[in-house]
Amino acid sequence: MKTFGIIMAGGGGTRFWPLSRKRTPKQLLNLSGKEVMVNETVDRISTVCKNEDIYIVTNSLQAEKMQEVTEGRILPKNILREPSARNTAACIGYAAIKIAKDYGDGVMVITPSDAYVKDTKTFTKVLQTAINAAASSQNLITVGITPTFPATGYGYIKYKEADCEVKSVDCFVEKPNLENAKKYLESGNYVWNSGIFVWKASVILEKFKNLLPDIYSDLLKIEEALNTVDEEKILNAVYPQIRSISIDYGVMEKSDNILVVPGEFGWNDVGSWDMLGVLHEADENGNVCVGNSLNIDTKNTTVYSSGKLIACVGVEDMVIVETADAILVCPKNRVQDVKLAVEALKEKGKEELL
Amino acid sequence: MKTFGIIMAGGGGTRFWPLSRKRTPKQLLNLSGKEVMVNETVDRISTVCKNEDIYIVTNSLQAEKMQEVTEGRILPKNILREPSARNTAACIGYAAIKIAKDYGDGVMVITPSDAYVKDTKTFTKVLQTAINAAASSQNLITVGITPTFPATGYGYIKYKEADCEVKSVDCFVEKPNLENAKKYLESGNYVWNSGIFVWKASVILEKFKNLLPDIYSDLLKIEEALNTVDEEKILNAVYPQIRSISIDYGVMEKSDNILVVPGEFGWNDVGSWDMLGVLHEADENGNVCVGNSLNIDTKNTTVYSSGKLIACVGVEDMVIVETADAILVCPKNRVQDVKLAVEALKEKGKEELL
Repeated sequence: MKTFGIIMAGGGGTRFWPLSRKRTPKQLLNLSGKEVMVNETVDRISTVCKNEDIYIVTNSLQAEKMQEVTEGRILPKNILREPSARNTAACIGYAAIKIAKDYGDGVMVITPSDAYVKDTKTFTKVLQTAINAAASSQNLITVGITPTFPATGYGYIKYKEADCEVKSVDCFVEKPNLENAKKYLESGNYVWNSGIFVWKASVILEKFKNLLPDIYSDLLKIEEALNTVDEEKILNAVYPQIRSISIDYGVMEKSDNILVVPGEFGWNDVGSWDMLGVLHEADENGNVCVGNSLNIDTKNTTVYSSGKLIACVGVEDMVIVETADAILVCPKNRVQDVKLAVEALKEKGKEELL
Repeated sequence: MKTFGIIMAGGGGTRFWPLSRKRTPKQLLNLSGKEVMVNETVDRISTVCKNEDIYIVTNSLQAEKMQEVTEGRILPKNILREPSARNTAACIGYAAIKIAKDYGDGVMVITPSDAYVKDTKTFTKVLQTAINAAASSQNLITVGITPTFPATGYGYIKYKEADCEVKSVDCFVEKPNLENAKKYLESGNYVWNSGIFVWKASVILEKFKNLLPDIYSDLLKIEEALNTVDEEKILNAVYPQIRSISIDYGVMEKSDNILVVPGEFGWNDVGSWDMLGVLHEADENGNVCVGNSLNIDTKNTTVYSSGKLIACVGVEDMVIVETADAILVCPKNRVQDVKLAVEALKEKGKEELL
């Protein structure tokens, strides 16, 4: 059975503003200084399937840039354009019917487009295990990240201990408080929910049919139109009407045939500016600096310059970012609130800065 | 007797870096958004003497820009160019011999070029009192600022209480610690040393002759060459050799015929970025913002943008400045260390940023 890579790249993340924008969200940024994140994701997935079998699901705002950036890696026809963002269930359903229509069936390796993986070799091994498990069963397979610290920013998966690489999932757990996160870390049978899923197209479509029949019905309408002259018209008419629900709420938490493959491969979702140290080495004072900067008596600070010299004097625990038209200054413990700046700009109608 | 304004404008202040540069120091900046500081000084002084009698002493690096900026206010021939900076004694001596040579004598009103005065009317009145006192005696007159808080950043002048506007100076006092500053404030007969001096050219030259004979000798060489074809050659040869000493150390602290006119006219030397609030009103959160900025949950912060949007999220007590080629980020209580950034750039040979 053929294996397909499905990269979910529709996020309009504001957490890397002012570098990330509506048309160039995080997955289209080269935060590492090496390659844009979506291409790093493509290259990782291409260790378990052919490039011609990798699909990127994105939205119409980002599609043009996405095609430009992934040229030579991804076939233009494999960039699936969502007319509007309808959450992960719709996104995965859309990819599943595409595979069902064009190939009958296939194993889908579904992954976010914007996470960092340090150890690609181990990552590939874990994926291969998940693919084998999915290909030989009717189960839903997830990849779990062995936690390295009591993270409160990730959801957890509790699994039943078993003497093999693939474990039965006991339950999904929401982002915990620190106390619970510590318990999970100690207990040893909790992993982080990476948002990486592996299953057959036929298996997930059966789940849609049973658990999300309204969405399944919409998907069937789209499937019928695929590869016809009406494809775009029907997609534009039906897709925006699909119920917005995540695959976690819609399917995973309501299913009992879920397996998890725990893995440890230096995974990080690089969720905000304070995480830039995952991609760049810090200096002896804990500063992570990209571009033109000068630090005087400055500690644990993240500095990202797109051009101008950024001089920090006596600065501690801050994030400072300069782009072509905007500068962000924010204490590290407030980076989650960068979105408030984006919202304020939206309210003020400053479209050019969004 | 004619009154001459002498504006000392040779400072290469780094405290407003990155806005202030070697060629455009603080006195050439328009920090208030209204007029460059040196012109505000010219306009204040022109209330007590004619514009054609105002001289600006500056250095050759800044002279061209100075002439450009003061055009229409100051005669180009009245811009005196120091071949190199030799401190305030040399600067004042140079202006004194120029007046002595061209006019025989005159009252000199000597002032820094880069302080802020809120109440020009009272300032003018105080200056006029000082001018009258200088014109009718052989005394050295200073203008003292009635302190409004226990400042530790200014030198003080202690005077003998007297029932008139002009008081005898008891002594000059170095910048005090907070405890002493509080005592001075309470005692009532201490004023801040504003660096504003009023005296006859003949009187200060006599002081040079007696107290700084080496400098006096150098000044005589220059005086001889003034208005001759050799003027520039001799100035360039002699001036850089003059001993570098301040008028305070060289003359004021060694003289006993010093009078002070205390005044209260909203004086501030606007010595660093945290003082920008003297020139601009703060918002309800204590933020002083010039240019394009967006503050989210931000307090007591100074933001100066030359173009790009500066977004502050959760920032407190900071200074953030953007210019065409550099950005400064610094806690308010560290602004005195901005010079360390300038020094570091100098060491790195980043001439374009100095």
